[in-house]
Amino acid sequence: MNIPQSSFPRVVIIGGGFAGLAAAKGLEKQELQVVLIDKHNYHTFQPLLYQVATGGLEPDSIAFPLRKRFKDVENFYFRLAEVHQINPEQNSVETSIGCLDYDELIIATGSTTNFFGNTNIQKNTMEMKSVPQSLNIRSLILENFEEALLTDNIDERNALMNFVIVGGGPTGVELAGALAEMKKGILPKDYPDLDIRQMQINLIQSAECLLKGMSAKASEKAEDFLISLGVNIWKNLRVLDYDGKIVKTNGEDNFRAETVIWAAGVKGENIQGLQASSIIPRAERYKVNEYNQIEKYTNIYAIGDVACMQSEKNPYGHPMMAQPAIQQGKLVAKNILAKRFNKKQNAFVYNDKGSMATIGRNKAVVDLPKWKFQGVFAWFVWMFVHLFSLIGFRNRAVVFLNWVYNYIRFDRETRLIIRPFKAKNQKINF
Amino acid sequence: MNIPQSSFPRVVIIGGGFAGLAAAKGLEKQELQVVLIDKHNYHTFQPLLYQVATGGLEPDSIAFPLRKRFKDVENFYFRLAEVHQINPEQNSVETSIGCLDYDELIIATGSTTNFFGNTNIQKNTMEMKSVPQSLNIRSLILENFEEALLTDNIDERNALMNFVIVGGGPTGVELAGALAEMKKGILPKDYPDLDIRQMQINLIQSAECLLKGMSAKASEKAEDFLISLGVNIWKNLRVLDYDGKIVKTNGEDNFRAETVIWAAGVKGENIQGLQASSIIPRAERYKVNEYNQIEKYTNIYAIGDVACMQSEKNPYGHPMMAQPAIQQGKLVAKNILAKRFNKKQNAFVYNDKGSMATIGRNKAVVDLPKWKFQGVFAWFVWMFVHLFSLIGFRNRAVVFLNWVYNYIRFDRETRLIIRPFKAKNQKINF
Repeated sequence: MNIPQSSFPRVVIIGGGFAGLAAAKGLEKQELQVVLIDKHNYHTFQPLLYQVATGGLEPDSIAFPLRKRFKDVENFYFRLAEVHQINPEQNSVETSIGCLDYDELIIATGSTTNFFGNTNIQKNTMEMKSVPQSLNIRSLILENFEEALLTDNIDERNALMNFVIVGGGPTGVELAGALAEMKKGILPKDYPDLDIRQMQINLIQSAECLLKGMSAKASEKAEDFLISLGVNIWKNLRVLDYDGKIVKTNGEDNFRAETVIWAAGVKGENIQGLQASSIIPRAERYKVNEYNQIEKYTNIYAIGDVACMQSEKNPYGHPMMAQPAIQQGKLVAKNILAKRFNKKQNAFVYNDKGSMATIGRNKAVVDLPKWKFQGVFAWFVWMFVHLFSLIGFRNRAVVFLNWVYNYIRFDRETRLIIRPFKAKNQKINF
Repeated sequence: MNIPQSSFPRVVIIGGGFAGLAAAKGLEKQELQVVLIDKHNYHTFQPLLYQVATGGLEPDSIAFPLRKRFKDVENFYFRLAEVHQINPEQNSVETSIGCLDYDELIIATGSTTNFFGNTNIQKNTMEMKSVPQSLNIRSLILENFEEALLTDNIDERNALMNFVIVGGGPTGVELAGALAEMKKGILPKDYPDLDIRQMQINLIQSAECLLKGMSAKASEKAEDFLISLGVNIWKNLRVLDYDGKIVKTNGEDNFRAETVIWAAGVKGENIQGLQASSIIPRAERYKVNEYNQIEKYTNIYAIGDVACMQSEKNPYGHPMMAQPAIQQGKLVAKNILAKRFNKKQNAFVYNDKGSMATIGRNKAVVDLPKWKFQGVFAWFVWMFVHLFSLIGFRNRAVVFLNWVYNYIRFDRETRLIIRPFKAKNQKINF
C-alpha cells in the first residue's frame, strides 16, 4: 500500500463516514501515523441523500472529498480501497490494494441495508445508503413517468405511478414527504398528459407508529403532515415479498408497484476475521465495551453504526445515527491518545442532543431533550442544523442556494436521468 | 408513442441540443403540434463539459431538464427515446418507443466523436461529448492518481500520471488548461506523497497551430498560456494508434500513457433512412440547402452540427459549434411558420459573432469580428458569456458560486469518484 514505516504508532481507520471522520480529526497533528481507508474518495452526508433521490440537490453538494479535508495534515494517509479481512493475530488488514499492519485499528464501516435474508426483496427493491443508489432512485422515478405516458393499459400505468416505501423511520418518512411534494408541485407540470392524481405513495410501517425512536407527539404530527400531503400510511403491516411486480404483505393489502424503496432496516457492515462471538447475530454489529473496544482485542475499536454498546439502558445499543457515531469517533481518538500516554481511557456516555425529521415544506418534527416542537419553526431548525453539519463552505453555499431557490419557486431542478436505470436494466451501485 | 392526433400539423424535432432547443422555442405557442425527442431528458451545455471532467462544476449545473423548459407550453410533447430510422415516404420516424408520423421533421441530432474508423482508439481513449462521459474522465483522472500512489515501478507510475489529449481545438485546449491548473493547485495538496512534477500533460495537434478556426494571434497566445502552465504541445503530429498503453504517432515521439482523451474530431450523428446521397462521406453530416432542407425532401430539415450547408465561402459547411446551431434552429422555426402561411422562406446567413476559448485562470482568448483580445479581460468576457448562455437561474447561480469559490480559493471541489471507471473496468456511457 506504499505507506512509509514511521517511528510513530500507526492507527488504521476503516471508513470515512461520520464516525471515522470524527476519529481521524481527533487524531490529527499528534505523534501518530493515521491511515484512513474508504471505498469511496468522499464522505457522504447521508441525512440528505433523500433530497438527491428526489431531485432537490446535486449529489456533489452533499459529498466531500476526503483527501481535501486532510490535505495539510502530516502523517496522514488516505487510501481508496476495500478491506476484505482483519488478521488480529498479525495486527494487519488485507485490502484490495494489499496488506497493512496496524498498532491500533478503528472499524467505522457503518451500516448497510438489511433485507433480512430475502433475496427477492434484495434483488427487486431500491436502497438508499449511498450517492449512486440515490441517483438510481432519482432515475427510476423519472423513467417510470416517461414510461407511464406511453401505455394505455391502466394497470400497468398505475403500477408505474405507484411508489411503495417500506419502513417508517426517518428515511422512509422523509422520502415519502419529498415524493409527495414532487407529486404536488412538479410532476403535474412536467407530465401534463398524465393524470398525476393517479400517482400513489404508500408508506408501509411494521410497527404501530411512524418514527419509532421519537416522541409520540412527533410521530403523530409526522403522520398528520404526511396525510395532508396525500401519502397513504399503512401501519402494523409487514412486507413479506416483492417479485418486481407485486408487494406481498402479511395483511389483506397487496400492492402492484414498479418501484419499491426498502428503508426497513440496516445492519452492521462488519468485516471477516474477528472471532464469531464479537458479532451480534441479525444486527451484525460488533459487540463493544464502554471504550468501544471489541471484546478480547484491546487494540481494535468499533465505532458508529457498526458498533453495538449494550447496556441496561440501551439493550440494543445506541441508535444507528450520526450523533452517536460522531461522539464515539471523538472519544475513541481521545482514548487512543490517553492510552499512549498511559492515562485512563474514558467510558462512552451518549449525549442525546435530540432527533428530528422533515416531512416537507414548513413541516418538520424536532425532539430536543427538553423541548419537542413541530411545524414551521421545526423546519427552519432542521434546515439550519443540516446546513451547518455539512462539510465545506462550498457545499453549504450550494445547498443553501438550492433550498432558497426550491422554496421560492416551489421547484426542484436537478431532475436529470444521468444514470438510466430501467433502460439499461441493471442496478449500478457504484 | 401516445401522442394525440391534432388538427394542427405536427413538427417532430429530433434532439434537444442547442439547435433543437432553439427550433422548439421558435415553434412554441403557434398553431402547430411540436414533438421533441431526445435520448436524454435534459439539455447539455456542452461548452462547460470540460469543467465537469476536471472537478470544477457539478454535472447537474450544466444540464437542464427539457420538460421543465416547456412545462407551460401547449401542444408540446417531449418523449425520451432514441430514433432508429426515418421513413421519408411514409413521413414517419421509428423510435425505441414506437412509430410517429410527422408533417415536418427537424433533425438536430448533433455530432458524435469521430475515431476515423480506428477501433483501437475508439475502445481505449476517452471521449467528452456528454455528461456521463465527462464524469468518466473525472473518475479516471482521480483513480489514476490513487493508483500511482501504490506502485514503485517508475514506468507504470509515469504512465498513470501522463495525460495525452489528442486534438488542439477548443475542447483539447480548454481541457489541457484545466488539467494543468489541477496539477498546479490541487493535486500536490491531495497527493503529498506523489511527486506531481512527474505528471505530464501532452496536447497533440495534427495541424501546424492550435485553435485552427481562430485568429493567428489567439492561437499563438493560447499556446503561450498553455506553455506557461506547463503543458507540452506537439504540433504537426498525428496519433495513429493507441492500444491502452502506448500512443503511436506518425513522428518519432510515442507516449506511454494510461489516459488518452480523444478530442480530435467529430462527425454528424445521422439517422438511417434517407437516401445515401444526402450524407456527406467522412463528415457524415446531412447536405442541406440554404433553408436547411435536405435535398429532395422538402419537409425534412437538418440543423446544427449534423447539417452541412456547403457554399463557396464555407466549402465544408459552418463550424460545428453552438452559434450556427442556435441560428439555424431559430431560422428553421421561422421558415416552417412561413411555409404554413405560404410565405417565402429565408435563406440562412451565418452571423459569426466570434469565438473564444479559455485556458485557465485569467487566461482566455477572444476573437470578435472587429476586435481580438487575450488575457484577463478576455477571461472575464468568456465567463460572462458562458454564464448567461446557461439555461435557468439556478444553474447560473450555482455555476457562478462555484466559479467565485474556485477563483478565490484556487480550488475545485467536486472531485468525487462517483462512477468508478477503472475499478469496474468498463466505460459506462450512460
